Amino acid sequence: MKKIAITMGDPSGIGPEIALKSLSRKSNLRSRCIIYGSKNVLEYYKDLLKIDIDINYLTKNERFDENKINSIDIGNYEEMKIGQVNPSAGKFSYKYIEKAIKDDLEKKVSAVVTCPINKEALNKAGIPYQGHTEIFAALTKTKSYSMMLWSEKLIVDHVSTHVPLKEACDLVKKDRVLECIELLSKAVKKLRGENYKLAVAGLNPHASENSLFGDQEKMEISPAVLEAQKKGIPVEGPISPDTVFFKAANGIYDGVVCMYHDQGHIPLKILDFYNGVNVTLGLPIVRTSVDHGTAFDIAGNGIANEASLIKAIELAEKLI
Amino acid sequence: MKKIAITMGDPSGIGPEIALKSLSRKSNLRSRCIIYGSKNVLEYYKDLLKIDIDINYLTKNERFDENKINSIDIGNYEEMKIGQVNPSAGKFSYKYIEKAIKDDLEKKVSAVVTCPINKEALNKAGIPYQGHTEIFAALTKTKSYSMMLWSEKLIVDHVSTHVPLKEACDLVKKDRVLECIELLSKAVKKLRGENYKLAVAGLNPHASENSLFGDQEKMEISPAVLEAQKKGIPVEGPISPDTVFFKAANGIYDGVVCMYHDQGHIPLKILDFYNGVNVTLGLPIVRTSVDHGTAFDIAGNGIANEASLIKAIELAEKLI
Repeated sequence: MKKIAITMGDPSGIGPEIALKSLSRKSNLRSRCIIYGSKNVLEYYKDLLKIDIDINYLTKNERFDENKINSIDIGNYEEMKIGQVNPSAGKFSYKYIEKAIKDDLEKKVSAVVTCPINKEALNKAGIPYQGHTEIFAALTKTKSYSMMLWSEKLIVDHVSTHVPLKEACDLVKKDRVLECIELLSKAVKKLRGENYKLAVAGLNPHASENSLFGDQEKMEISPAVLEAQKKGIPVEGPISPDTVFFKAANGIYDGVVCMYHDQGHIPLKILDFYNGVNVTLGLPIVRTSVDHGTAFDIAGNGIANEASLIKAIELAEKLI
Repeated sequence: MKKIAITMGDPSGIGPEIALKSLSRKSNLRSRCIIYGSKNVLEYYKDLLKIDIDINYLTKNERFDENKINSIDIGNYEEMKIGQVNPSAGKFSYKYIEKAIKDDLEKKVSAVVTCPINKEALNKAGIPYQGHTEIFAALTKTKSYSMMLWSEKLIVDHVSTHVPLKEACDLVKKDRVLECIELLSKAVKKLRGENYKLAVAGLNPHASENSLFGDQEKMEISPAVLEAQKKGIPVEGPISPDTVFFKAANGIYDGVVCMYHDQGHIPLKILDFYNGVNVTLGLPIVRTSVDHGTAFDIAGNGIANEASLIKAIELAEKLI
């Protein structure tokens, strides 16, 4: 069985800590995962966290060892400025991802699970991407993709993500909504089987009550839902944003297509703050991620919670 | 002690049913409340629901009777088209509200609790208001007001409500945000005492991460928060919309100022779907309301849930 790559994330954030905690505490994950990171950072955290399982750095001569934590060393991150925005950290976090994607495209690993990176560090290092999703799309040459958030309590997919809310309103277009319905449909079918139902949220209050407060429901969302239905996808909408998530959380829908970042993030984080997993749909490879940031404020203190990373690895296994 | 007016809402909706259920099941509410409605509708539902407590219609000669359900009859709603949009129902639902507001301004009652009305019926009757909030503002000549949603789990106030989301983005202005902070501060102080803390949500994803995705946080929201702090209000923000409600639900904040309708409605309805109460802040009178619509789909079936109305009456008592 092929292994799963875990990218260590920004070396100054909590990524190295949660990666080591996950693999040291769960032998079943240890036997499946390889950390793509920097040896000196991992060794630093191994000591800090008093982990007594050795780390096995894979080289041409060194093979995967189920009794150890396995890692591929991408190079020494010398600076160790924990909890700070650092261009060098941005550069390394990109290198881990780049190598993991390459290995996945070459079928050396079967999925990539990412620890958090810092957008500012990335940008200061001159790396021209907004974040993980854009890096994965670019390096795998993917045009049609979307960001799904998954938890056991709710699954949401997003028409847009990190754009100003006013711009997000303009991105609600029929073709894009349809694309997201199709992407979510594929993923939910994989997770729940053939018997599933999707919902599409409206954009405006009460889904605009027949165009009383906005017309995107009539002009863009309804036509997308109709076309998806014609293609045989079990989907309903647009549904009032303030009731659709309650319904989904109560089992009426298996997934919700959301019109903007916070429409999906607010309900998911309320329902399951620590256990969300971020999934990029539409890629030729399986990619999941923790649903939180670098948490510079607590990095290096040994108190970071690895729950989301463990969920991300487990979900990746289901999606492979 | 002065009584509380309950307006019966749209006669074709579930208002009459939940009003009668609440007062028939709770003697403490019966001794405090008067239903402003139509005698023939109430008698119809009294029979349908097999309520064996008589309704006492107050006139100049008839005084409040604690052993009965008390009502003021505003006139016969002849049509009884249950579950349908009907201009005549719109006209009557307005008349109940108009009379209740008049009585409150004349100090005959101490609060008005409203059952749901139908906006379309209201408009078809030629009544030029978007909904309850606008009627209350106009009839009490109030300029500075906002819509608060209350539940035991979360309190939210809204910078705007029933407008297209794109317009709502433009309504995020310093003065309005400050106004909402001040209105919410007064209400929360009344409910929680002097020791409270408010939060203000950002508008954009991650509260824009230092203007990476929008500048309303920097230009409008932060200056409003600063000015409120100068006035001595314990408030923080702007805080990322996808974490602020989790924090508030966990007791870190007592109330959250939200930038648009669904930002506040989504988390509240996820946390406490059936027990939300809608409160108009800033009026010279106390006004609370159920947090749901006329539910035409179930009107007349005897299955409507009166929980939200009971909560609305109880909250009105706390706010008087």
